[in-house]
Amino acid sequence: MKSLAKSEAGPPKKRRPVRVAVFGATGYAGGELLRVLVQHPRIRLTVLSSQQFSGRRVCEVYPSLAGKCDLVLEEIQMERMIPRFDIAFSALPHETSMDLVATLIGRDKRVIDLSADFRLRDPESYRRWYRPHKAPHLLRTAIYGLTEIHRKKIARASLVANPGCYPTGAVLGLAPLFTQRLVHGTVLIDAKSGVTGAGRSSTVELSFSEVNENFKAYQVGVHRHTPEIEQELSQIAKRSVSVLFVPHLVPMSRGILSTMYVELRNFPGEKKLGKIYRDFYRKDSFIRILPPGFFPQTKEVRGSNDCAIGFRFDSRVGRLVVITAIDNLVKGAAGQAVQNMNLMYGFPEDEGLRGTAMVP
Amino acid sequence: MKSLAKSEAGPPKKRRPVRVAVFGATGYAGGELLRVLVQHPRIRLTVLSSQQFSGRRVCEVYPSLAGKCDLVLEEIQMERMIPRFDIAFSALPHETSMDLVATLIGRDKRVIDLSADFRLRDPESYRRWYRPHKAPHLLRTAIYGLTEIHRKKIARASLVANPGCYPTGAVLGLAPLFTQRLVHGTVLIDAKSGVTGAGRSSTVELSFSEVNENFKAYQVGVHRHTPEIEQELSQIAKRSVSVLFVPHLVPMSRGILSTMYVELRNFPGEKKLGKIYRDFYRKDSFIRILPPGFFPQTKEVRGSNDCAIGFRFDSRVGRLVVITAIDNLVKGAAGQAVQNMNLMYGFPEDEGLRGTAMVP
Amino acid sequence: MKSLAKSEAGPPKKRRPVRVAVFGATGYAGGELLRVLVQHPRIRLTVLSSQQFSGRRVCEVYPSLAGKCDLVLEEIQMERMIPRFDIAFSALPHETSMDLVATLIGRDKRVIDLSADFRLRDPESYRRWYRPHKAPHLLRTAIYGLTEIHRKKIARASLVANPGCYPTGAVLGLAPLFTQRLVHGTVLIDAKSGVTGAGRSSTVELSFSEVNENFKAYQVGVHRHTPEIEQELSQIAKRSVSVLFVPHLVPMSRGILSTMYVELRNFPGEKKLGKIYRDFYRKDSFIRILPPGFFPQTKEVRGSNDCAIGFRFDSRVGRLVVITAIDNLVKGAAGQAVQNMNLMYGFPEDEGLRGTAMVP
Amino acid sequence: MKSLAKSEAGPPKKRRPVRVAVFGATGYAGGELLRVLVQHPRIRLTVLSSQQFSGRRVCEVYPSLAGKCDLVLEEIQMERMIPRFDIAFSALPHETSMDLVATLIGRDKRVIDLSADFRLRDPESYRRWYRPHKAPHLLRTAIYGLTEIHRKKIARASLVANPGCYPTGAVLGLAPLFTQRLVHGTVLIDAKSGVTGAGRSSTVELSFSEVNENFKAYQVGVHRHTPEIEQELSQIAKRSVSVLFVPHLVPMSRGILSTMYVELRNFPGEKKLGKIYRDFYRKDSFIRILPPGFFPQTKEVRGSNDCAIGFRFDSRVGRLVVITAIDNLVKGAAGQAVQNMNLMYGFPEDEGLRGTAMVP
Repeated sequence: MKSLAKSEAGPPKKRRPVRVAVFGATGYAGGELLRVLVQHPRIRLTVLSSQQFSGRRVCEVYPSLAGKCDLVLEEIQMERMIPRFDIAFSALPHETSMDLVATLIGRDKRVIDLSADFRLRDPESYRRWYRPHKAPHLLRTAIYGLTEIHRKKIARASLVANPGCYPTGAVLGLAPLFTQRLVHGTVLIDAKSGVTGAGRSSTVELSFSEVNENFKAYQVGVHRHTPEIEQELSQIAKRSVSVLFVPHLVPMSRGILSTMYVELRNFPGEKKLGKIYRDFYRKDSFIRILPPGFFPQTKEVRGSNDCAIGFRFDSRVGRLVVITAIDNLVKGAAGQAVQNMNLMYGFPEDEGLRGTAMVP
Repeated sequence: MKSLAKSEAGPPKKRRPVRVAVFGATGYAGGELLRVLVQHPRIRLTVLSSQQFSGRRVCEVYPSLAGKCDLVLEEIQMERMIPRFDIAFSALPHETSMDLVATLIGRDKRVIDLSADFRLRDPESYRRWYRPHKAPHLLRTAIYGLTEIHRKKIARASLVANPGCYPTGAVLGLAPLFTQRLVHGTVLIDAKSGVTGAGRSSTVELSFSEVNENFKAYQVGVHRHTPEIEQELSQIAKRSVSVLFVPHLVPMSRGILSTMYVELRNFPGEKKLGKIYRDFYRKDSFIRILPPGFFPQTKEVRGSNDCAIGFRFDSRVGRLVVITAIDNLVKGAAGQAVQNMNLMYGFPEDEGLRGTAMVP
Repeated sequence: MKSLAKSEAGPPKKRRPVRVAVFGATGYAGGELLRVLVQHPRIRLTVLSSQQFSGRRVCEVYPSLAGKCDLVLEEIQMERMIPRFDIAFSALPHETSMDLVATLIGRDKRVIDLSADFRLRDPESYRRWYRPHKAPHLLRTAIYGLTEIHRKKIARASLVANPGCYPTGAVLGLAPLFTQRLVHGTVLIDAKSGVTGAGRSSTVELSFSEVNENFKAYQVGVHRHTPEIEQELSQIAKRSVSVLFVPHLVPMSRGILSTMYVELRNFPGEKKLGKIYRDFYRKDSFIRILPPGFFPQTKEVRGSNDCAIGFRFDSRVGRLVVITAIDNLVKGAAGQAVQNMNLMYGFPEDEGLRGTAMVP
Repeated sequence: MKSLAKSEAGPPKKRRPVRVAVFGATGYAGGELLRVLVQHPRIRLTVLSSQQFSGRRVCEVYPSLAGKCDLVLEEIQMERMIPRFDIAFSALPHETSMDLVATLIGRDKRVIDLSADFRLRDPESYRRWYRPHKAPHLLRTAIYGLTEIHRKKIARASLVANPGCYPTGAVLGLAPLFTQRLVHGTVLIDAKSGVTGAGRSSTVELSFSEVNENFKAYQVGVHRHTPEIEQELSQIAKRSVSVLFVPHLVPMSRGILSTMYVELRNFPGEKKLGKIYRDFYRKDSFIRILPPGFFPQTKEVRGSNDCAIGFRFDSRVGRLVVITAIDNLVKGAAGQAVQNMNLMYGFPEDEGLRGTAMVP
């Protein structure tokens, strides 16, 4: 990092841009990667894979990229692709990404995997919540890419397991509390997500007429992001942490709001608690701590890589309420992935990610 | 009709309720038929078909029907079904309904077909816009079920071709003008529909994340409802009428607003024009004519069988603007189908259809 | 009740319809009352008040009522109104309704008040959460109108305090647990409401551009429905119950989903728990208990007076999750008010309320 | 322009950033200006006015600007403000902006006015559609800021009248046709806008519960953007052009789709027509011409400064359909304003405006 940082400060040496491949470029996470990466000054998109749209120019599939990227989408043909990129983002579905990532790592590529395949360090846990893992040796290699928590390891990583959208919102809101050993008992996480969180899908359940003017919970207590949240909080807490995680589907496209209910071992006062949060995130330009009693809305982070955090202690019942807001496709997926890439190459951490949320 | 009307007026004889079958009960039009029919006092639902959900109780698929209908959804098995119903609604897809309807008519059942299969009287026109017709002999038998226009024929019909949602909104708004021979040249119909108009579909294009916060035109000038509109207007006008029909997709679930641009042969004045409309629809309790300069919104008819009509003559450019609003699933599909059934059995025309629009 | 019930069973005597006044007829709760009441066969609307629209016909304000109700909206002038109605619904805002209700009760009218003004039995509690009460003597007279819980008292009541929308969804979901003394500690209620819950309002915060594509919590732990929920649960539990209530705003028009987290004293098993719920509500046609592990969506009750209840016990963390869905304007306001009126006059409890939810 | 262009090419001279004032910074157009301008590398925001929020930091009103702009919002006090900025954007309401702009021009400031106050060159026309003008002498000075049409004049302008959102979408779609003298008779413009087009408003009509699940036309034929469209098309056509303009309100936040119906003097063929469009806009990086038969959606331009144009000739009825899509807040307001500022200072025209549309 150091030498890179120095070269940043000096006169701009003409560095060859990093060549980037995006596998699964036409899903929602893939498309969002493109939206961010076409504006990133230090990289060049060179390889885009898509099963469904292979052979077509990406700007035909995403007319919004016209004039910005005219690469042709390719089916995955590893030998022809390998020489053409330095780092790969995999935005393939869970259980499909695994094989690709193992191959890429075997060919000495750096990889940021946006699927769930390398997030759980325990193969047994992966088996229980997904199915048997086919590359369990990589589970220990992979670095969990929650940037604010694992920044140093990410910078040196060859394989980054980019966090799930729900775990990003939940863990960022709870980490300072667990670090300070303030939490008592089970944390309840009542999370609400926009529909893009389910991916670019063609099921009746996600059709407009079903989702619009509707609100529901789903996978109550059994959502696969549960072990991911517990793993990270346990590591932070240095003890086994369990949570009850209940996700809901909101009739909107983007955004996750996580309302979390915490019993405290002892309550240090709201002012002190604010300081704990601000200290914990003092180097993190994407984290916004609101004053006590103020709470974020999803709209204020929409389209940006920000995570906004608010909290309030209810003395009537002795519970702390923590609420976080992120854009599930940005900080919850593509934005955080690029943030991690920036770390891996010594770029400014917010390069390509300085856009302001789109309000309204 | 007369004798039926008399029996209505006299002391309520205990009539056996009409036994009703709904084929394709779990699509949007089928579901809306159920919503209307479970509250209809003179019929009894006896047969419900569903390919996807056969074997399950309808109230498992539509929990809202719990306590109101617990029929088991069946695959189509004609011999077992025939003895159990008097009239059938077919809410099967276009080009699938054809075979079923032909069979049912062959077995002397009365049928109201909500597909497009029997709407065009000219087999050649059907071939051009759809594909070759398999029961062309029935095209002349079928009565086009735009109730306000063809009331008498519908009452006696064995096969009613229930109108398309767009043609319903368009023709009801234009019929008085064509009857009075006021129209000059091509009528432009710029129509906007909620998403249920596309049926209960699992395509990516109709997923929430694609439709929400988006607006677009589709099938510009080539939509299959074009010949249906032209056929009906031509019959009313007693001359060949052509229209340019451009449909758009609105990010909402229900409702069609049709904005129509008409050149007039001569303009009788807005007051006179209002009278022409009110006279034309003087017996039609579902039609609402707004005062000149007032225009309907889709919300004021949502969930009801109403059609609201407003107009204004723009003297600057010499064009009449006519705007109609309907609920595409009610007056544009299931509601009008039940209205037609009421006519066919001599029931009050609004039986089961007196519900007020759901605002907001 | 008995004699009424008998008269129902016998030959239909021509009873004079009950004459109904609606005060505050042009807000959302008032409008929904009209939507329900114009179809109610045993009443007649005779008096409608509206400050903003007085002097205009109600069907100009709500075009959807054209042909169904053409009353003129009036400013409140008690002496001219009193002789013209038997029962009044007050849909005036909190703190405004109080005076009207006191007057009406003083004139021996039966009243169903949809505001919060008579829901809290303790004047001190009302003062703390609202402001000093001006008719505290009526607080003990008023019957809390959660029909399924207080049916008998409601039938005889002169003043019914119709429950808040959030308390309706919360208390119906929790009552069986508290009746069985199963609950341990504080219940967490994470509720999500559509925007009509805020009334027909002209604030920027509720404008489309602010609410659409946004999700947020509000009044975290300090919402005025908190004491109402605690009062009712305490009465049921026969002990002092406290809850943490966190409401959220969903970008949809109608519906409340309440996700509730309960620690149990002992867990009887999901099958037994299902039986407890079904037994508790065995006479309640509007309550729908889902099988364990199934959860309701707001859409399946939209426009109907239903309340759907689902639950699951998470053995990993030892918490019961209970989720209820209602339409905030129907079971959460106007529908329940009419249900109460039906009880007060010995009508079938579901008269005028048999409509099926509007799906989609 | 030339010398500036040269300096661009050479080694980057350290130019003092242009100091920018935004009047009316907390409306939707003002807020969108901030979103664009905080990322613009060649300017510095120095003065922000707001009547409603004066005294508060802008990042309290827009939390999304936290860390990006912490200016304090000020009431307008001209003498204290004048020394602190070089150019002003006025995003004040129509009829309010007039006075401010006249003052600023009198103090030799360059001004880009986003209101309608200086768009009509004819004071009589302004009087007829708005009210008597208070600074009619400036109407001839002001340059209509439709960048692609008036680029050269804008570069030298002291006062730019930034176009209305509807006229931007309409004129960009029709200009090539009028330039080629292809148009016959009245053009019909059926336009559909998201709700932000109405500004940050607190009327009941724009509240979520009214707009959601609703679609309607408004100001049919009498909208104030009519004379603006006619003025610009007449100038391009070098003859008097009249249009019938019918706007509609779409339940979405951003975006305008304009469907335009044109009778052609002669039809050159779709291929030739495509060439006419591409030639006309060959230097315009924000304009995207789709192949014949393809039509744009609002989502593909959302958040970007792009205008996408599609067309199709319907030979059945002899009409050309042209459809354009813009984001009403970007190309229809703030984005085009910045594009104009870039021209006025010789910056690259797309500086600060290179962001890709947010899809989905």
